[in-house]
Amino acid sequence: MGEGIMRLGYVHIRTTDLEASRRHYRDVMGMQEMACHNDRVYFKCWDEYDHHSVVVQQSDRAGLEKMGFKVHTYDDLDALEKQVMQHGGAVTRFSEGENYKVGQGIRFEIPSGHVMELYVEMEQVGKALPSLNPPPYPEGLKGVGAPRIDHLLITSEKPTETIEWLMKALNFYMAERVVENEHSDKPIAAWLFRSNTPHDIAIIPGPDKKIHHFAFWLDDWFEIRKAGDVFSKNDVSIDVGPERHGITRGQTIYYFDPAGNRNEVFTGGYIAYPDMPVVTWTVDQLDRGIFYFNHRKEWIEGFTSNVT
Amino acid sequence: MGEGIMRLGYVHIRTTDLEASRRHYRDVMGMQEMACHNDRVYFKCWDEYDHHSVVVQQSDRAGLEKMGFKVHTYDDLDALEKQVMQHGGAVTRFSEGENYKVGQGIRFEIPSGHVMELYVEMEQVGKALPSLNPPPYPEGLKGVGAPRIDHLLITSEKPTETIEWLMKALNFYMAERVVENEHSDKPIAAWLFRSNTPHDIAIIPGPDKKIHHFAFWLDDWFEIRKAGDVFSKNDVSIDVGPERHGITRGQTIYYFDPAGNRNEVFTGGYIAYPDMPVVTWTVDQLDRGIFYFNHRKEWIEGFTSNVT
Amino acid sequence: MGEGIMRLGYVHIRTTDLEASRRHYRDVMGMQEMACHNDRVYFKCWDEYDHHSVVVQQSDRAGLEKMGFKVHTYDDLDALEKQVMQHGGAVTRFSEGENYKVGQGIRFEIPSGHVMELYVEMEQVGKALPSLNPPPYPEGLKGVGAPRIDHLLITSEKPTETIEWLMKALNFYMAERVVENEHSDKPIAAWLFRSNTPHDIAIIPGPDKKIHHFAFWLDDWFEIRKAGDVFSKNDVSIDVGPERHGITRGQTIYYFDPAGNRNEVFTGGYIAYPDMPVVTWTVDQLDRGIFYFNHRKEWIEGFTSNVT
Amino acid sequence: MGEGIMRLGYVHIRTTDLEASRRHYRDVMGMQEMACHNDRVYFKCWDEYDHHSVVVQQSDRAGLEKMGFKVHTYDDLDALEKQVMQHGGAVTRFSEGENYKVGQGIRFEIPSGHVMELYVEMEQVGKALPSLNPPPYPEGLKGVGAPRIDHLLITSEKPTETIEWLMKALNFYMAERVVENEHSDKPIAAWLFRSNTPHDIAIIPGPDKKIHHFAFWLDDWFEIRKAGDVFSKNDVSIDVGPERHGITRGQTIYYFDPAGNRNEVFTGGYIAYPDMPVVTWTVDQLDRGIFYFNHRKEWIEGFTSNVT
Repeated sequence: MGEGIMRLGYVHIRTTDLEASRRHYRDVMGMQEMACHNDRVYFKCWDEYDHHSVVVQQSDRAGLEKMGFKVHTYDDLDALEKQVMQHGGAVTRFSEGENYKVGQGIRFEIPSGHVMELYVEMEQVGKALPSLNPPPYPEGLKGVGAPRIDHLLITSEKPTETIEWLMKALNFYMAERVVENEHSDKPIAAWLFRSNTPHDIAIIPGPDKKIHHFAFWLDDWFEIRKAGDVFSKNDVSIDVGPERHGITRGQTIYYFDPAGNRNEVFTGGYIAYPDMPVVTWTVDQLDRGIFYFNHRKEWIEGFTSNVT
Repeated sequence: MGEGIMRLGYVHIRTTDLEASRRHYRDVMGMQEMACHNDRVYFKCWDEYDHHSVVVQQSDRAGLEKMGFKVHTYDDLDALEKQVMQHGGAVTRFSEGENYKVGQGIRFEIPSGHVMELYVEMEQVGKALPSLNPPPYPEGLKGVGAPRIDHLLITSEKPTETIEWLMKALNFYMAERVVENEHSDKPIAAWLFRSNTPHDIAIIPGPDKKIHHFAFWLDDWFEIRKAGDVFSKNDVSIDVGPERHGITRGQTIYYFDPAGNRNEVFTGGYIAYPDMPVVTWTVDQLDRGIFYFNHRKEWIEGFTSNVT
Repeated sequence: MGEGIMRLGYVHIRTTDLEASRRHYRDVMGMQEMACHNDRVYFKCWDEYDHHSVVVQQSDRAGLEKMGFKVHTYDDLDALEKQVMQHGGAVTRFSEGENYKVGQGIRFEIPSGHVMELYVEMEQVGKALPSLNPPPYPEGLKGVGAPRIDHLLITSEKPTETIEWLMKALNFYMAERVVENEHSDKPIAAWLFRSNTPHDIAIIPGPDKKIHHFAFWLDDWFEIRKAGDVFSKNDVSIDVGPERHGITRGQTIYYFDPAGNRNEVFTGGYIAYPDMPVVTWTVDQLDRGIFYFNHRKEWIEGFTSNVT
Repeated sequence: MGEGIMRLGYVHIRTTDLEASRRHYRDVMGMQEMACHNDRVYFKCWDEYDHHSVVVQQSDRAGLEKMGFKVHTYDDLDALEKQVMQHGGAVTRFSEGENYKVGQGIRFEIPSGHVMELYVEMEQVGKALPSLNPPPYPEGLKGVGAPRIDHLLITSEKPTETIEWLMKALNFYMAERVVENEHSDKPIAAWLFRSNTPHDIAIIPGPDKKIHHFAFWLDDWFEIRKAGDVFSKNDVSIDVGPERHGITRGQTIYYFDPAGNRNEVFTGGYIAYPDMPVVTWTVDQLDRGIFYFNHRKEWIEGFTSNVT
């Protein structure tokens, strides 16, 4: 047995304008365009070593096509497959190459209707840095120059059920949660992790099958400011930020890709471990949990309701 | 089965001047003094929730008494006990309370002669923040205000053997290593992890049973500068820094506690996963790996040879 | 002759709740309360050496009572008095002590109706640091811990006239300006300086005698983030930010004191010299000049129209 | 009358390897090469609008050829000429064009034997940003990307005399000084300013006619770190740093150009005004004034004695 699910491996999103999205992820976010294949463009960040972490697909609407989580070993994959089935999931096995550059794996819907894939292997192309005596970062990064993707946040009509399912079927741990009030023990939103970050995936109430945002990691608060400069220069529409989250303590800018999919640049947060006491937010204090600086602003409503 | 070893749980060090060390860890590092018990003082950082992470013991010499790694479940502990025995380690079971506030566990020597303990439970006292609707950090932190310990670096007369043993017996993964030259595959130093940081423990050549340093995490390069200010105001002896490491890409100041045990404040680095390609340093380029800015300085020799 | 006007020396504002304003400037901004005298409270920042830089006066409405600019020498004062009179200003001489702890000086209205005072001496109490072998900053600062005030921004019904008057009568230099379009040479807003910062005073269109905001200097983008944390913890109402200005390139949070007077924390910007080419903004690009990240947001309208 | 001396306008240095120095100032520091003329290369930084701020001249030795300070008006120039003569300086008038792209001015030796020039006009080429609706910084900066030069530090056999002469003949103000002990009032080193920075020029004891370093401004502590990365990648020899100064509170890296002329990247510090109380350092505490973190290190001796 290995380490189970290691991380969010890829986000596969739809766009109504592939060329505009291509420019966004390549020139603004600074990702490397790895391949263009069947109306899909594959991108990776400079500090990622697998072939891609974002897939953008031409479509008639925006939104999340599916998400892939990378699993450590094939034993882990088998064990997780059993767990998914035990918890009522219909699992499909897919073969190597069915996902471009990705090995065999399993596909299933989680209770919120989102399609998730688990896989063990993707073609390794290496970081943008040499693995022998590397400098700390590569030269000539474009735009934001994000080193890696970090997490995604999805909506669910029955968030409590989805949260519990992810914890039971896939061994996610809970870092933070929202409850109605101090007397409630039922999470209506949660930030879940398998890595030691406060969230690899988060769930909030909302329509099934929708994505609220997916996030790129940046190294610090200065990179957040630089991202804001890059967004302004490139006419990227900022939704909210720079801000601090109360939840995760992270710092952030939310913005939209050309199809209207919300992206985030995120930094900070803490190291999360499976034995860490869960942090709980009550609905009456949630505004500060979402945006610590500009809480009680009318825009929080738009922020929480607008999804693709 | 759970997640195995989760993190460096505690560093138990010796001091020749308990009162001076107490002031150092409490007033300069900003740790909370949790207890004083049998000539040992127990400290925790503000973002840690277990009872302590540093134990300082009065002695006639400085150095590392032992180190404790926290394991996720008792099943993990049993499995690791078997692995240690399979790899030739003599394991002692210790009972709850033998280590103050720590549950039962196992103790053994690793090939370099260092004493390591694995345990599943320590009394949880909670972070310095409430777990309900917390602000991002507590008020009134003293001195450096380090949120948590991060890693330790030990020396070994047979480093290759120690490195391999830690990987096989305890399932550590390798993030970076030093080899003689490009044609060698034998690590003479290595940075190993169980969490997603580039190192929970590192091994370099040197005398057995010695510690080169243990490190506190800081949140960013600004906190590193602030730490430098605090050290100067408190007459703490800085060894090297502020600097950047080539290895791990982190940023650092090394300094000494009153007994001469080297401490580090560390930030930055990248997220490490078990499937990440290992970063390799050759001896001829190692100076930049150790100190990226002031490489080829005479002080690197003192830095690498001076241990307690 | 000396250096003429050196800096914004004090801002004298009105409040409808003196106790609440006192807590704001003392406990949130971290200023030192120097005196309470005739329903006025006097504050200084830690890096200022004159007796006070902010005066808060109990009143039935918020707003700016007057502003004081410090002049280098009495010869400068005499010369400026003549210039003010030459440009049609009615000048009153005030004697030492008429303003608490302030020496003699002159008082006059600028074309926008704001009361301005020029003075040469204020009781020097020294910085919060010793002048002999000082550390880089004092210990135990409260809240934001702003080192000094920086500038103020006022509104004027005839902004062009006010701008030109300040330049001719008081020798202010222009760093940046707003014009209707590229073919216009008539400034409808301007950022003026006597120190080497991009603005000691700025003028925008709006009602006469009103203040848009006055600003505290912070040392960097990290201090801006910390200020946001402090504001949230203390329920200070943030207006806009953290943001970057296109104008001055500075970084900022705008917020309100308990009486509704807008404050700013400001950092960054460039060094301005009298021979620097003026930076010009046209109205069609002004949104990015005001808030570089979240330009074209509806809140800019409230930001520019709301004054006290 | 205008504002007198406004700033350090140019540093004219000698190099033993013009091509190597050219690469250093252009590719590592990121300056624009403006002209190559009579074995001299002229450079400007991106946020400077005059034709050049650094002149590098081929020679058989390193060192400072001369320094130029820009004066506001010709009236100021005349007045300063008189003051220099009154204080015993032999003044030469030079005509427009004698210094490439520089207008007419005066040349004289200060008591330490350094050649200083004052001038009112240099061809204005504009910043690297447009003066109409500019973004906050230009794209595509190379290497360190320093926005401007900041100050220089020279040595003098009779530093007290040189300091007093600069204050009397050229109206420099003193921000900080070093004295033997608390009972002495005789500055043996001083940091002098005409702008509102803590130093445009500084004087320390040492041989006449020598330069200790000249400095480039950087915008913050993050840019200092980035400069260290750039220096390492380009094999620039770092002398000391990153460090904090007690004197000026600034943050710094010292390093050498290919000819051995010491450069500095500098940020931070405070705003200095003519009426600011002078900060005094005594020799016994001077180590912390020079390098606040690593004070009492042997390298300070080399740092203070090594000049070109």
